[in-house]
Amino acid sequence: MSYYKHHIFFCLNQRDKGEDSCAQHAAQAGFDRCKSRIKAERLAGPGGVRVNKAGCLDRCAGGPVAVVYPDETWYTFVDEQDIDEIVESHLKRGEVVERLLLPPNVGR
Amino acid sequence: MSYYKHHIFFCLNQRDKGEDSCAQHAAQAGFDRCKSRIKAERLAGPGGVRVNKAGCLDRCAGGPVAVVYPDETWYTFVDEQDIDEIVESHLKRGEVVERLLLPPNVGR
Repeated sequence: MSYYKHHIFFCLNQRDKGEDSCAQHAAQAGFDRCKSRIKAERLAGPGGVRVNKAGCLDRCAGGPVAVVYPDETWYTFVDEQDIDEIVESHLKRGEVVERLLLPPNVGR
Repeated sequence: MSYYKHHIFFCLNQRDKGEDSCAQHAAQAGFDRCKSRIKAERLAGPGGVRVNKAGCLDRCAGGPVAVVYPDETWYTFVDEQDIDEIVESHLKRGEVVERLLLPPNVGR
């Protein structure tokens, strides 16, 4: 069994020189919202959920992005409502949020 | 199929106030070594390997630590030889490096 049932990583990368990056598109707000919701729901910890900061996940064209492992599920999100849906559906019930899936061909 | 065959995350967390953390135990050196080896071996990219920075993975007692997904394999390492073994065995051939596995009960 996986140490964490769901381990979600948020790209919080901030590029130099003002280049576009996840950090300029509410990635930090998404991470903060997810972290606080998981804590409030008491889902955090071993056997539960871990919300993690990450560097560039290299799928920038779909940013801001997050990936859930070991589920291998990649999401793109816009606002807190999207994050809440990922929490309620995927991280609580294990049901993928189809409308927020990152298309498989989206890369850097 | 997973976007990356092996996605390895290194905890590079640096705590405030001089508290012990992975960043004080060669975590950055391990990340750098892994990144350069994967690039040199031309294993980087979709369908291959992604070497990623991460914040605290919350298994600090075994630090420095890294986790490989979707494999759900957690490692603890000491030096570049350890990293080279993870690259050669796990990331190239898909064979877990038993001697570097983080025991399942190691947490914060």
